Parts: sequence; structure tokens; C-alpha cells
Amino acid sequence: MDTVWLNYKEALDGVEGAISQGLNSEIDLINKITRYTLMSGGKRIRPLLLVVSAQMGKVVHPRYFLLGAVTEYIHTATLLHDDVLDHAKNRRGQLAARNLYGNQASILAGDFLYTRAVQHIVSMENTEMNHLLSKTCSMMTEGEALQLSCTSDLDLTEALYLKIVEYKTAGLFSAACKLGGIVSALSYEKKEALSCFGRNLGIAFQIIDDTLDYLADHKHLGKSLGQDIKEGKMTLPLIHLFSNCIEKEKTQLIDIIQSKKPKKDLFHVLQLMEQYGSILYAKKKADAFIQAGKNALGLFEDSTHRHALFTIADYMISRNH
Amino acid sequence: MDTVWLNYKEALDGVEGAISQGLNSEIDLINKITRYTLMSGGKRIRPLLLVVSAQMGKVVHPRYFLLGAVTEYIHTATLLHDDVLDHAKNRRGQLAARNLYGNQASILAGDFLYTRAVQHIVSMENTEMNHLLSKTCSMMTEGEALQLSCTSDLDLTEALYLKIVEYKTAGLFSAACKLGGIVSALSYEKKEALSCFGRNLGIAFQIIDDTLDYLADHKHLGKSLGQDIKEGKMTLPLIHLFSNCIEKEKTQLIDIIQSKKPKKDLFHVLQLMEQYGSILYAKKKADAFIQAGKNALGLFEDSTHRHALFTIADYMISRNH
Repeated sequence: MDTVWLNYKEALDGVEGAISQGLNSEIDLINKITRYTLMSGGKRIRPLLLVVSAQMGKVVHPRYFLLGAVTEYIHTATLLHDDVLDHAKNRRGQLAARNLYGNQASILAGDFLYTRAVQHIVSMENTEMNHLLSKTCSMMTEGEALQLSCTSDLDLTEALYLKIVEYKTAGLFSAACKLGGIVSALSYEKKEALSCFGRNLGIAFQIIDDTLDYLADHKHLGKSLGQDIKEGKMTLPLIHLFSNCIEKEKTQLIDIIQSKKPKKDLFHVLQLMEQYGSILYAKKKADAFIQAGKNALGLFEDSTHRHALFTIADYMISRNH
Repeated sequence: MDTVWLNYKEALDGVEGAISQGLNSEIDLINKITRYTLMSGGKRIRPLLLVVSAQMGKVVHPRYFLLGAVTEYIHTATLLHDDVLDHAKNRRGQLAARNLYGNQASILAGDFLYTRAVQHIVSMENTEMNHLLSKTCSMMTEGEALQLSCTSDLDLTEALYLKIVEYKTAGLFSAACKLGGIVSALSYEKKEALSCFGRNLGIAFQIIDDTLDYLADHKHLGKSLGQDIKEGKMTLPLIHLFSNCIEKEKTQLIDIIQSKKPKKDLFHVLQLMEQYGSILYAKKKADAFIQAGKNALGLFEDSTHRHALFTIADYMISRNH
């Protein structure tokens, strides 16, 4: 994966410049928060996907770096709002913006980043991009709202969980890849293939994120173990456990989830997950999505760029933070 | 003003249909909140401005009702976020959405309305509209953030107050009028005249809103008297009073504003405002903006539509809720 980052460094530096240049609000407070959050060590996975996807075609738009900034702005806008929604203390191992600048300022900074993303995208004057991005953002909000509706819902099915994941996370991964295809003037089929690749990657990414909540070296993740269960977020490991354990254990789990203070019982939950292979199940699911993503790229001839996309796909499931 | 509402009823009914049809999220929670807030008796001033402005030209786009919905979605998105920012209890005489559905859901519903507005606007496939709307939304967020930065800032100047007002409120009024001009294919000069008219109206509207906070029949406004001073919002009457009263009164005012519980002292503030003519001063300012707005329409020949815009302008300063 390090080689991939290195090979696309020039393009990613271009994106980095675009990210920085776009944060030129007249309002100091907004600049402070957006810079603080955008420069807090995010991996820039979405810009990377965009940059590599854009190399899959021949024509590359002279201002395509801007699109990398757009994906990162949208992602960061959701982080700013999510941290308010989740009452988060930390993000990426440092204080969440809301703890430094307040909830109000964080909401507004998220709003601002979203409006800046829209300004950038419409400046490309490309109808297909406009439609794609606006639909994606709408889906992301719906995904978050669906997740909120399903808080502590013990009957949440795997199918509905996957829908939440697709909407809130995979949509932007998919859009990043497809934007790369649009900007390099690929055929309809190839753009769809990139979109499908990104969607599958995004689903796998979120599933792994959700398993890390039960495994993580929380120094890296910047949040504490078992945060999801504390917030009543029903994710794949817990859904699997819940639908496979015996009645008595189910009752215990319900008590733990509904107590809203599941920290002391977390070890018991982890033991049950181990016993029923829930983490393993989730990881296998993620593997399957990665494989489906790779298959979608069968349409493209072998190339260093396709190989890079495969490497990124593998990284999604091997990462431990 | 009643005649104006009546004369444009058909077009406004079209907007109303577009508002309702666009609220078709797959997610129940979002539909509930957006409907609750959008159907809570908002006056639809922005759609009215758009509809009348659109009649100032000859060509009217067949889907221009959609633009009325766009302005109302954006306005409502800011209300949903504002109520969270301000910890508001009520809105338009009923419980604020956040008190019924929670802060989290309100933030997401606001995000959703904003993304829906963007989806609608890009569906018009008109670059000028895209640029206008995205810039307007960005300004609105900046205006809110600037206002937040200036909370309890006793040195806030009238000029900076007017900038906040222009950004957070007048931008959307201006955009509504200009969109009408774009959709009816008016000349550059006429579109700018409508934009200028809307901006001046919006500034006057907000100044009146801010004076009503010290005067209002709070049953209509759905918020209590003196709410702004309680939140440390420095608005025109207070800025005027502060820069005109004597040192001793200034010290008293500082104490009242910084106490964060200014309710018991509100009567004293109102008395001082009466004594120094601060409300009158603010109203005269609003009058001047209305006049400037009307002057901008000098470019157009006299017509029933221009007359309707004048009537709307007068309504801005005569309203008492």
C-alpha cells in the first residue's frame, strides 16, 4: 500500500493543494475548524480512489484535483456533524472539533464544507457530476437518519444494516471512483464498473470499521472500545451474535444494550462474539465485498492503475485502524 | 398584501405541490421532520418573491415551481439547524422539531433538505442557477458563523451587524428574486436589479425581525420577548442603544448582557431603548433599505408585477410577526 501512496503522490499533492486553497472562508472561526479537522491526519482514501480511477482513462480534466477536495470536504462535513450527533470526545486521537470549538460552530463548519463542496462541483460545469454528487449527499444523510431510527433496534436485520452502510459510507466511495471515470471520459460501462467497485469497497470499509470497534487499538482509532454498543449502534458483529446465540444470552445482550452503560459487560459481549465467530463472520463478509469489487474491474485490461485499485481494496480489509 | 397572495395563488399552489412532492425520502424519520417543519405555517415569502420576479420577464421555464421549493427547502434547513444552535423551544408557535424528534434528527433533516435543494437545482441544468445557489448557501453558513463569533461582543459595529444580516438572511432573498429573473430570461441588468431588490428587502426583513424581538406579540413569533439578548445576539436596536447611552447605562447593559439571565432586567433595557429611540432608529434603517430596494426596480416599466413587488416590500416593514 505504501507504494501506491508513493506512486500517486504528485496527484495527491495536487489534491492537497486544492483542499487547502478551498478553505478560504472570510470567517476566521470557519477556517479554524475546517483546517483543524481536515488537517488532523485523515488518510485521504477517497481522493486516492478518485485519483487512481481517473488514471484508468486517457483524458484527464485539468482541474480534476478539485474533485479530490470535494470528496474530502463532504467526508469531513459528515465527520463534523457525526461527532455532534454522537457526542464524541475524540477524533483520530485528538480532541473532536466540537470539544474545542463547540457544537454550534461544528455544525456550521460542516454546513460550510458541504456548501464549499457544492460550489467546487458546480464550477466544473458538468451535469453528470452535479447529479452524481447531489444524489450521493442526499443518500448519505438518509443513511445517517436510517441509522438513527434504528438505534438500539435489536431486530435490525443484516439487510437493513447493509443498506445503512451502503447509504452512509459506500455512496461516497462509489462516487469518488465514478467521478474519476467521468473526468477521464470513460465509457458508460466502465464508469459503472468503477462505481460498483467503489460501492463494494465502501461497504467492506465500513464493516471493518464496525468490527474494529470491538477489536481496536483505540489509540489509533481515537475512540474507545465498544463505543458503538454504548450508542446503541447495531453493527454486523452484534447482529450476527444476536441472531445466533441462545435465548438466555439474547436476554443478557438486551439488558446490556439497553443499560446504555455496557462498558462493564463489554468483556462478556466480546467473549460471546469469539464463541459464535461473529467477528470472523463480519470479516468474511467484508472479504466477499472486496472480491465483488475486484470482479467489477474485470472489464478493464490489466494495468498498473488497476493493480493499484486492487491493492487499495486489499488494504481496506487488512487495516487495523 | 392579501391581494398579492391571491393574485399569485396559482403559481404558489404549484410551488406548494413541488415542496410536498420533493419530500419523498425513503426514510420515515426524515419525512416526518421535514413535513412537520415545512408545513408549520411558514409564510412562503421567498417562493412569493421568486414567483413574482419570474413574471417580470416573458419566458417562464416550465419547471420553475421547483425553484420556489428550493428556496423554501434551504430556508427550512437553516431553521432546523438554527433551532439546534439556539436551543430553541418553539418555532412558529409550536414545538420546535428538535423538541419533538431530537437534535440529532433535526440536524440530519436539515442536511437532507439542503441536499434535496441541491438535487432540485442541478436538475434544472442551468450553470448560472447552480453558481448562484451554491454561493448563496455558502454565504448563509458564513453569516451564521460570523454571528456566532460575535456572540456577546459589545463592540459589534453596525457595519458588521449589517454584513451578518446580508449573509445569513438577505442572500437567499436576493437569490430568490434573481432566480426569477434567470428563469424568465431577463437581461443581465434586470437580473442584477432583482438581485439588489431582494438583498435590500432581506436586510430590512431581518432588521424588523430583530426589532420584533423587543416588541413582539410573542404568540405569533413563537419565541419569547428578549430572546436575542438572552442569547447574546447583538442586533441593531441594542447596538444603537449601546453606542448612544451614557457610561453608567453602558455598564448596566454590559452586566445585563453578560448575566445570561437578562429577563428580569429586560424592562429596563426596553425603557432605555424607548428613551434613546433605538427601535425607531432600527425601523428607519429598515425603511431606507426598502426604499433602496424599490429604487433598484426603477429599471423596469410599471406593471402589476412590479407593483406587487412594491407591496411585498412595504409588507416587510409593516408586519408585526
